Amino acid sequence: MQQIETYQRLFQQYLSSHPFKSEPVSLYEPINYIMELGGKRLRPVLALLGYTMFEEGPEKALPVAYAVELFHNFTLVHDDIMDQAPLRRGKPTVHERYGANTGILSGDVMLIHVYDYLLQACEPAHTHALISAFNRIAVEVCQGQQYDMEFESRQEVAIEEYIRMIELKTAALLGGSLQLGAIVAGAPPVDIERLAFFGRQIGIAFQLHDDLLDVFGDPGKFGKKVGGDIVQNKKTFLVLKALELADEATRQRLRSLLVDSKLPETDKISAVTALFEQLDIARHTEIAKSTFRQQAYDSLEAVQAPNAKKQVLMQLAELLMEREV
Amino acid sequence: MQQIETYQRLFQQYLSSHPFKSEPVSLYEPINYIMELGGKRLRPVLALLGYTMFEEGPEKALPVAYAVELFHNFTLVHDDIMDQAPLRRGKPTVHERYGANTGILSGDVMLIHVYDYLLQACEPAHTHALISAFNRIAVEVCQGQQYDMEFESRQEVAIEEYIRMIELKTAALLGGSLQLGAIVAGAPPVDIERLAFFGRQIGIAFQLHDDLLDVFGDPGKFGKKVGGDIVQNKKTFLVLKALELADEATRQRLRSLLVDSKLPETDKISAVTALFEQLDIARHTEIAKSTFRQQAYDSLEAVQAPNAKKQVLMQLAELLMEREV
Repeated sequence: MQQIETYQRLFQQYLSSHPFKSEPVSLYEPINYIMELGGKRLRPVLALLGYTMFEEGPEKALPVAYAVELFHNFTLVHDDIMDQAPLRRGKPTVHERYGANTGILSGDVMLIHVYDYLLQACEPAHTHALISAFNRIAVEVCQGQQYDMEFESRQEVAIEEYIRMIELKTAALLGGSLQLGAIVAGAPPVDIERLAFFGRQIGIAFQLHDDLLDVFGDPGKFGKKVGGDIVQNKKTFLVLKALELADEATRQRLRSLLVDSKLPETDKISAVTALFEQLDIARHTEIAKSTFRQQAYDSLEAVQAPNAKKQVLMQLAELLMEREV
Repeated sequence: MQQIETYQRLFQQYLSSHPFKSEPVSLYEPINYIMELGGKRLRPVLALLGYTMFEEGPEKALPVAYAVELFHNFTLVHDDIMDQAPLRRGKPTVHERYGANTGILSGDVMLIHVYDYLLQACEPAHTHALISAFNRIAVEVCQGQQYDMEFESRQEVAIEEYIRMIELKTAALLGGSLQLGAIVAGAPPVDIERLAFFGRQIGIAFQLHDDLLDVFGDPGKFGKKVGGDIVQNKKTFLVLKALELADEATRQRLRSLLVDSKLPETDKISAVTALFEQLDIARHTEIAKSTFRQQAYDSLEAVQAPNAKKQVLMQLAELLMEREV
């Protein structure tokens, strides 16, 4: 815990001392705005941890940590435009505050500056390897977002497709942050792969946990509104699993409940939740979650690095999934 | 001429044999669509010419040529969304055909893949220099687009600000294409700078020429609608120069003509054109154009390279400005 908080603080200091100052102000102000909105700084902390797994002192990994956080925030700016989201961390989204056109263009500039930080992150001799790895991750995140949008309008989505989508959209960058930190440290390729796989599987488990929280979370502790996914008719793991396990009559009932736009929100939430309980969906989701978590830990176990450092990563993983269900 | 056409064909073949084939199709189809819409392939030809100025055979410069064309098309996709443009080269724009969300996301993926082509474009030892140069250019293009959007809603724009805007938005990538080709060839830094400056100044002259064509172009030969900038109340060089040279009464008359939304289009065009003629704006624009062209040629002259190769670049520059005024 202590090390994680230390890294969060260290990164926040670095971030605050590196505001964008270029002209035109109208292009760069939105970037500083979103970057200062806060958050857990999970990805940069992962990048720092990926580095210190193999090298002493996290300072040298601050540019690569900044690169992954900047990239993550770029995806938030553009995704919020696509989702027409008015709020982000309780504040107006970039496009809401500065207009969609500036949102698109400031996002584009963020993505270009990500590569500036990647160039700073290592010796020129390693630039090729670092950017090559980053590009694969970045493309995956975009593919995940496209699948997510596609699934909204699709009737049938297989559970495997859903897992692949969250792997691309969310988990690739979590594993990727560890991976890029380890590349900057010059870690052996096989350990880099193992660490990336650990992060990816934890990312999937974390998203399943989030799906679960949306329905069964403690309203006092869960940050978002409980039942939000149900109201929005999102095809989460819970819904897809329920459709898979239900008999024909129940499946029909669930489908019609999900698309029922006349039903009051609270009734819709409680009816769908009752169906989930009847089908024991929480237990099934926990099983899937545990499988991914176990795969993650097995992969981490095999990494050639001090045990104490692996412990910190496991702590972080548990922290991500500790919120009350 | 012959060499330019040979390079256009060579690039087109390379382009056609490198379609994006990744999944999801919905993300990559729009990229292949815009890349195959055609155009003069000016930027990739410049990249090939920048390379062959210092090295034999253009083939090795095809990846960097592809990178600049892909980046240019990325800017078109996002700019068309911002401008709500329905058509591009006479065909539906990407967002018109595939939706704005896909337009944003396909554009993002294009930008990431630009860096893949930059990685392919040279030995790993030179990646750092190449991407560093590209990033400066790419950021400038975005800054130019932001200034362009800002100027639309601004009352006063100085001629120097306008020149700077077109330098960033248009000329930086024209000079940049030559520059990146020369970097891949391993040219001496001083020659790379001279070549980049040549392309930049030609780019500014070319944009001034385009401003002129919009008003005084031969309708049969000019691709776009004559007077389009006047109808849209664009602050072109002609308008800014007219505002600068006019006496107070004429300035007021021009300002009110430009914002008059009740006046029929043809009346607005002929009234503004008459004012331009009265103030001899075409000649003033030609003078500015010649100044930038001369600066370009002086810079090219100083490059250490065979004269025959400089001749081809000058041919290309003249070609860009040969359309009838």
